[in-house]
Amino acid sequence: MSLLVTGSIGIDTVETPFGKRDAVLGGSAVYFSYASSFFTPVRLVGVVGEDCPKNLLDVFKGRDIDSTGLEIRKGSKTFRWHGSYLKDLNEAQTVQTDLNVLAERAPKIPDKFTDSPFIFLANTHPALQQEMLCCLKQPKLIVADTMNLWIQTERNELAKLLPKIHGLVLNDAEARLLTEKKNLIEAARAVLKMGPKFVVIKKGEHGCLMCSDKDTFVLPAYPADKVVDPTGAGDSFAGGMMGYLATQGGSLSSSTIKRALAFGTVVASYTIADFSLAGLQATTRDQIDDRWSHYKQSMSF
Amino acid sequence: MSLLVTGSIGIDTVETPFGKRDAVLGGSAVYFSYASSFFTPVRLVGVVGEDCPKNLLDVFKGRDIDSTGLEIRKGSKTFRWHGSYLKDLNEAQTVQTDLNVLAERAPKIPDKFTDSPFIFLANTHPALQQEMLCCLKQPKLIVADTMNLWIQTERNELAKLLPKIHGLVLNDAEARLLTEKKNLIEAARAVLKMGPKFVVIKKGEHGCLMCSDKDTFVLPAYPADKVVDPTGAGDSFAGGMMGYLATQGGSLSSSTIKRALAFGTVVASYTIADFSLAGLQATTRDQIDDRWSHYKQSMSF
Repeated sequence: MSLLVTGSIGIDTVETPFGKRDAVLGGSAVYFSYASSFFTPVRLVGVVGEDCPKNLLDVFKGRDIDSTGLEIRKGSKTFRWHGSYLKDLNEAQTVQTDLNVLAERAPKIPDKFTDSPFIFLANTHPALQQEMLCCLKQPKLIVADTMNLWIQTERNELAKLLPKIHGLVLNDAEARLLTEKKNLIEAARAVLKMGPKFVVIKKGEHGCLMCSDKDTFVLPAYPADKVVDPTGAGDSFAGGMMGYLATQGGSLSSSTIKRALAFGTVVASYTIADFSLAGLQATTRDQIDDRWSHYKQSMSF
Repeated sequence: MSLLVTGSIGIDTVETPFGKRDAVLGGSAVYFSYASSFFTPVRLVGVVGEDCPKNLLDVFKGRDIDSTGLEIRKGSKTFRWHGSYLKDLNEAQTVQTDLNVLAERAPKIPDKFTDSPFIFLANTHPALQQEMLCCLKQPKLIVADTMNLWIQTERNELAKLLPKIHGLVLNDAEARLLTEKKNLIEAARAVLKMGPKFVVIKKGEHGCLMCSDKDTFVLPAYPADKVVDPTGAGDSFAGGMMGYLATQGGSLSSSTIKRALAFGTVVASYTIADFSLAGLQATTRDQIDDRWSHYKQSMSF
């Protein structure tokens, strides 16, 4: 069942205690697409500038990712992000952000994508996220991400988006900012009152919290002894989660959501083991399944 | 099977966003004893000064806690701690510490306690912890706690203690300080090389990490929507863990340790729901068992 993702595609420069990588592929939609393509066919919608090296997206070759929705916009420049984890491996310090093409009009969803049943709106302006929804014919499950910038500057648009989606994925600091609740469970419950049926709060190395009207539970991150570059961990997590949910027809039963979050957790554990997409590229679905079983087993007693 | 605990008994003043309590009962051995007494008979060894109000330990009345090892030392003053969580509910700021009687000689383990099979050496000087071990006739399972002060000032004594114990319980900052490893899994493995068979790293609201030569796993904290006073959470966690292990004859199988950590997690979730011992006092073993089952179920998929 096809999973449509819209989000950023970027050229990253990343510094961590393990080294520096210049001009590597990044962006929320890129990590998400790669991660979810372990599970289900993916349809990518995004935009880059004409400066984007032709071979940058070669990473998607041989994967079930339809990039018909990838626009290479003439006269525009690709989104660039420079981040450093030298101070704290758990929190990126942004050295520089050049929104470039992301500050222009949104890419168009191709007609042949409008029947997509599963939708992930990676982090972008909430007005654009709503615009994307308008052209969808029969969405079964819509999940969105957001960020502190929109919570602070576009709260009204975000408030209009939230009742239109089934799930919201955001990190702990964003959840606290959005709801003005310090306690994460209170924050999660406050998010539910804003519209979505479920909310997943990502806590980085500390795992995630899921809250719906039926359930509240916490899952730990996979214990990783090798964290080389955390960039894209959250998007890979969301990709693994949505990829699995798509294979389950969009069921939101308690155990399906848990399994999905466990897949997201495991996929993210591969992302952080190397720079950019290299960790995911070195991974197979069999490895993911093995680690998933080990993770599941590790919490069983 | 009797569980012997030695550690601090104190008079606390605590400030949290939910209020202030003056001169309430605290100390590692107190929280530990109460928590473990839900599971098994407890033998308490500790010392207070003659200033300690007679009714302060009334909280133990009716519980299976043998306080023969409680010394009320004439001419000495009780340990006092004043902490504040006003800035961060997850980390105490110490306003004042008066070691008082804790800076004097250790209390004596009564002869009738020397056959105790299960031992918990709550946080105190590692030389005193070793001294306690000398008089034990047939210990089956010895677990100790420690703190940053001893790691910084008494590293040699700590190094002598670690090969003599089966398990070490400490928090994440302490584990990093002890091993000079930032990654907690690396830190846990480095602790194992110092002697203990297993190490439990407490991560506060983020749960715990257990590492042995057979296993590495992470369990989340119980999702608590009411955190009034985190004082004693770590000691209650250790108490629940050791209390359960004592009922299992000291088995250290993977599933026994997980069950024990889950009981520790659940008991701690009751501690933090109110000031001082009030959260534990309002709790029954049935409630603990119910919450334990719910916690177990919440991670099953």
